[in-house]
Formats: sequence, C-alpha cells, structure tokens
Amino acid sequence: MSAAADSSMRDLQHRLLEMGGLVEAAIHDSVQALARREAETARRVIEAETAINRMEMENDSLTIGLLAVPHEDAGELRFLTAAIKINHDLERMGDLAVSIARRALALMDEPPVKPLIDIPRMAQLAESMVGQSLDAFVKRDGGLARGVLVDDDEVDRLRDSIYEELVRFMKADAEVVARALNLLFVSRNLERIADHATNIAEDVLFLVEGIDVRCGG
Amino acid sequence: MSAAADSSMRDLQHRLLEMGGLVEAAIHDSVQALARREAETARRVIEAETAINRMEMENDSLTIGLLAVPHEDAGELRFLTAAIKINHDLERMGDLAVSIARRALALMDEPPVKPLIDIPRMAQLAESMVGQSLDAFVKRDGGLARGVLVDDDEVDRLRDSIYEELVRFMKADAEVVARALNLLFVSRNLERIADHATNIAEDVLFLVEGIDVRCGG
Repeated sequence: MSAAADSSMRDLQHRLLEMGGLVEAAIHDSVQALARREAETARRVIEAETAINRMEMENDSLTIGLLAVPHEDAGELRFLTAAIKINHDLERMGDLAVSIARRALALMDEPPVKPLIDIPRMAQLAESMVGQSLDAFVKRDGGLARGVLVDDDEVDRLRDSIYEELVRFMKADAEVVARALNLLFVSRNLERIADHATNIAEDVLFLVEGIDVRCGG
Repeated sequence: MSAAADSSMRDLQHRLLEMGGLVEAAIHDSVQALARREAETARRVIEAETAINRMEMENDSLTIGLLAVPHEDAGELRFLTAAIKINHDLERMGDLAVSIARRALALMDEPPVKPLIDIPRMAQLAESMVGQSLDAFVKRDGGLARGVLVDDDEVDRLRDSIYEELVRFMKADAEVVARALNLLFVSRNLERIADHATNIAEDVLFLVEGIDVRCGG
C-alpha cells in the first residue's frame, strides 16, 4: 500500500473519531435537553444530524476508495470493513439522539412524571461507551473493548429498572401514560445507542484478536 | 477479476438471499406465534437465530476474502460494501424477530389485550419489504427499491395507529399496562425491521444509480 493510501487510512480513522465526538455530544445534549427542559439544546441536536449524516456519506466514499487500492495485508481489509460498520453504527446513534431530542421537545411543556435519575445515568454510561469503543478501535486495544461489553450489562440493568418504575407510575395514574411512554422510549433509545457501541467493541475484538464474539445462540 | 472470484460473488449474493429467506420466515413465525399463541413456533424462531448469526459471520469472511482480490471495476467494490451492510441488516432483523418471539412467549398465558389486526398487517408488510429489497438488490432494480421506501411510510402509519390504540387501552385499565407494553414493543420491533429493509433499499439505489438517498436533515 502506498504512503498516500496509508495517510488516507489515518485520515479515515481521524474522521471516525471526529464523528464519534459529534455523536457523544448529541447523546449528552439530548438527555440534558430532556432533564433540564432546554428546547434550544434539543434543537441543536436535531440540527447536528445533518453534519453527522454528511460525514457518514463522506467516510463511506473514502472507505470505498481505499478498498480499491490493492491490499496485501489482511489486517488492512479488516480495518476497512470495520470502518464501514463503525461509520454506520455512529450514524445510527446520531439518529437515536435526535429521537431523544424530539421526545425532550414533546415533554418540554408537560408536568414531569418523576425526577430523572436513571435516564441521565444511562446516558452517561452510553456516552462513555461510545468514547471507549472508539478509543479501543484507535489503540487496537482488546481490553478496552471488553470493558464496553461489561458496561452494556449495566445499561441493560438500568433499562429494566426504568421499565419497572415507569410501569408502576402508569398503573397508578392513567394521566401519566403518554408522558411515561416518552421516557420509556428514551430509555430504549439509550439502550440501542449502547448496543451500537457494543457492536463497535465487537468489531474491535475481531480486528485485533480475530475473535468473533457475536454469539451463536 | 478471475472467474473464481466472479463465481464467489454470485455465491455471496446467493447466500444473502438464503439468509433473507430465513429472516422472512423468522418475522412471519414470530408474529404467528404471537397471534395464534403457538409456543412451539416462537421457540423455532429463537432457535433459528443461531443459523442466521452463523451465516452473517460466514458472509463477512467471504466478503473480506473477495475484497482482497484487486478490483478494477468500482461497481464491484460498491457491490461488496453493500453486501457487508446488507449482511449486517439481515442479522439485526433476525435479532428483532427473536425479540418478538420472546414477547409472544411472555404473553402466551396472559389474557389478550385486544384482537390483533394491525400488528399482523405490519408484519406482513415488513416481511414483504425484506423480500422486495433483496429482489431489488439481486436484479439491481431501482424501481423495486423505491417501492420499499413507499411501504416504509405505511409501516410508520400503522405504528402510529397501534400506539394510539394501545395508549387508550392502558389509560382505560391499569391491569393491561404490562401486556399492552409488550404489544407496543412488538410494533416497534416491526418498525425497526422495516427500517433495516429500507436501509437495504437505499444501498441498492446507491449501487445501481449512484444516488445517495440517505437524507441530510
């Protein structure tokens, strides 16, 4: 592979990190908009989606261009196929942050169902999983990637606890049903963001250790 | 590209179709298990996931192997990158069908919330979108791909109508909240299956027309 192609691969990696930064900010802002009732912050998340989508398309083109260069090293091909997947996972996370921002706007003028504690914790965890999975990718660090898989179990625990609590609220008062459902969907969006970070971590494990951790059953 | 590589590309396409067939059956069976209270059918969907996951890994390896062959034709690279994405979309759909099957099992011995009409319609539509998007891929047919995008609007309409109806049930009777939520999540799983079929259709449009229909805002 030529020095130019090598430099383009570093460029691609840098772009994925930059996109990851935008996605982390979008996750953070979407839940802040919800918790602090900040319409302006919610709208910023919705606007940022355009930039994230554009980056996805540019990264795709760049990757396809790099695939066209002959590769003798199987590791390079694994890197490029991982890049295609990571790029797509990041774009999906951006979409999910937008969904949360839209629900934040829908709830903005409604009375609160309950103080938000578990949802911001879940968001913080999901956000750090995104950062850590990309860090693992850049450093080719299997240990960091495994840490993301462990965090995902905690996210699932929080999801279950949020579900139990919201069901109790809905059963106790029919008036809160629609609002509680918005919060329930926010928690599911955060769960899916964490799942995408887990996908990235699994791609990293395949990239660095050749181990396919996607389970067979 | 050699005749051997050309034959492997046809093999890859055939494998994706075969995987699509398993996924369509899983979607169909998961909702049949729900609507007809067939525990055995639900368990069959859960068991089929192993085969779908294994196919994903095999297809990934095959695609990476094909990418290693030098490609002078940009169309071949676009085909192979589309194959990576489609493979992943199909595997996710298989996971979502399993989620539906698990909810079918959870509801198996509970009294019904309501007769199921919109959910089976949504499932039928999602299932046909999977078939049609793969048909569009194989035939490189942009018109078929566009048909999938149109169907996705109908899926979203059904999702909204299911939501409104289930909220009414939950407000009227606290006892149905948990069961109605299971149905609500089933409808969201079907919506996500349809989204993945839409992703495939978008990949096909990019492949055959070079148009990127993923919107920027």
